[in-house]
Amino acid sequence: MNKKPTILISNDDGITASGIRTLVDVASEFGNIVVVAPNSPQSAQGHSITIEDPIRIHRSDIFGKDIIAYECTGTPVDCIKIAKNVVLKGKDIDLCLSGINHGSNASSNIIYSGTMSAAMEASMEGIPAIGFSLMDFAADADFSASAKIVRNIIRTALSKGMGKTNLLNVNIPKLPFNEIKGIRICRQAEGHWIEDFVEGKDPLQRPYYWLTGKYEYRDSGEDSDIWALENNYVSIVPVKHDLTLYKAIPSLNHFSEL
Amino acid sequence: MNKKPTILISNDDGITASGIRTLVDVASEFGNIVVVAPNSPQSAQGHSITIEDPIRIHRSDIFGKDIIAYECTGTPVDCIKIAKNVVLKGKDIDLCLSGINHGSNASSNIIYSGTMSAAMEASMEGIPAIGFSLMDFAADADFSASAKIVRNIIRTALSKGMGKTNLLNVNIPKLPFNEIKGIRICRQAEGHWIEDFVEGKDPLQRPYYWLTGKYEYRDSGEDSDIWALENNYVSIVPVKHDLTLYKAIPSLNHFSEL
Repeated sequence: MNKKPTILISNDDGITASGIRTLVDVASEFGNIVVVAPNSPQSAQGHSITIEDPIRIHRSDIFGKDIIAYECTGTPVDCIKIAKNVVLKGKDIDLCLSGINHGSNASSNIIYSGTMSAAMEASMEGIPAIGFSLMDFAADADFSASAKIVRNIIRTALSKGMGKTNLLNVNIPKLPFNEIKGIRICRQAEGHWIEDFVEGKDPLQRPYYWLTGKYEYRDSGEDSDIWALENNYVSIVPVKHDLTLYKAIPSLNHFSEL
Repeated sequence: MNKKPTILISNDDGITASGIRTLVDVASEFGNIVVVAPNSPQSAQGHSITIEDPIRIHRSDIFGKDIIAYECTGTPVDCIKIAKNVVLKGKDIDLCLSGINHGSNASSNIIYSGTMSAAMEASMEGIPAIGFSLMDFAADADFSASAKIVRNIIRTALSKGMGKTNLLNVNIPKLPFNEIKGIRICRQAEGHWIEDFVEGKDPLQRPYYWLTGKYEYRDSGEDSDIWALENNYVSIVPVKHDLTLYKAIPSLNHFSEL
């Protein structure tokens, strides 16, 4: 690549989160950065898009004057769509980065994740895309080890390509850099949320329910992302958007009678 | 199955949509119905969940007094979670149905779909789940042919099981019943939205952008859902929530150096 690559960056924690600041700082070493990120936290927005209402974008100087940045009133997926069609007006995007998410997007968390949905949206448009997450929900999480890992991964993606995928889900354990054992290429572990709702009454004595829960892994395979993370490795899962369960197709002939 | 099955129903067009009314009417022939559906349209909400705010449910008699129904302030996925944990308090659910959606969820539309995300959420909890969509966006769409097809599919699912999957994406062409040629078991077609944003100014002269677009298929395979629908068949795609692109795993070893 002779000219500097154009790198689009978004996230779901919002444009003021420290995770996206780390990502912008590191990615700036490699290319021309365009940021379009939500103006408010949009965690767990999945692949939600805004169709019932208009969305708005506003120029932001939060990353300094050398970085083209916009805050957007829409979801993470809206950010990618408006970046491509309005901000960059169809100009080539060489790489899309999303995150660094505050909290894990390993296992089936990918399905709920706004961070990964932004990356997936770019990949569906043929743009190589990487979502990054640090396993630390704290707003003041320490992204210093993540910065080194993200730097290596961006360098590899730009110099050597993304193999036979154009979407990666990268999760980073909450550890100092020298305690991270390495990087493993993995499959998505099987797991789910064991949920509960906290029940309460609002000031007008009307009942409400507030979602809470903990994640349960139903999978301990050494080739899974959860195994990697629990054993102090960074996990990288190649991701696709074809949700067909091919092996089940021949098992469904009993449905084909009208 | 000796006792009457418990069938959970949701959708993304909201509890007042005619598509969910058709689904409730047909499913009532087979089991005890519990409806938890959004109190407002939630199209294109993807797998979004509500974590920053509480949600509320209110009992509804919209389907008559024999049907246990609640309207919910949350997303389609929230509806499934609160149905399971609060309304049914962990009681067994034999089948989850979502829809009938007003509009196609074929091809990659599944990824944006609140209807399919509700069904997927149930399937991730081990509940057999089917999402139904009619290829007609109109609020007053004619669901009479859909009713016959849905009846057959529910009967088959309850009597013969769901083969090697527990999640089906069913799309129905906008045709009278006698013009529908049959049912085909398919894979998800490759396709994407060609998008544009309508730009406008609000009454205060502030610019806004409103998403629009048309769907483009990049796939004409006769084994795809789009081919089936364009040739007047109902399409059934078995769906999974493991998004790993397995074939790409060996191609990513160049990322494994820290």
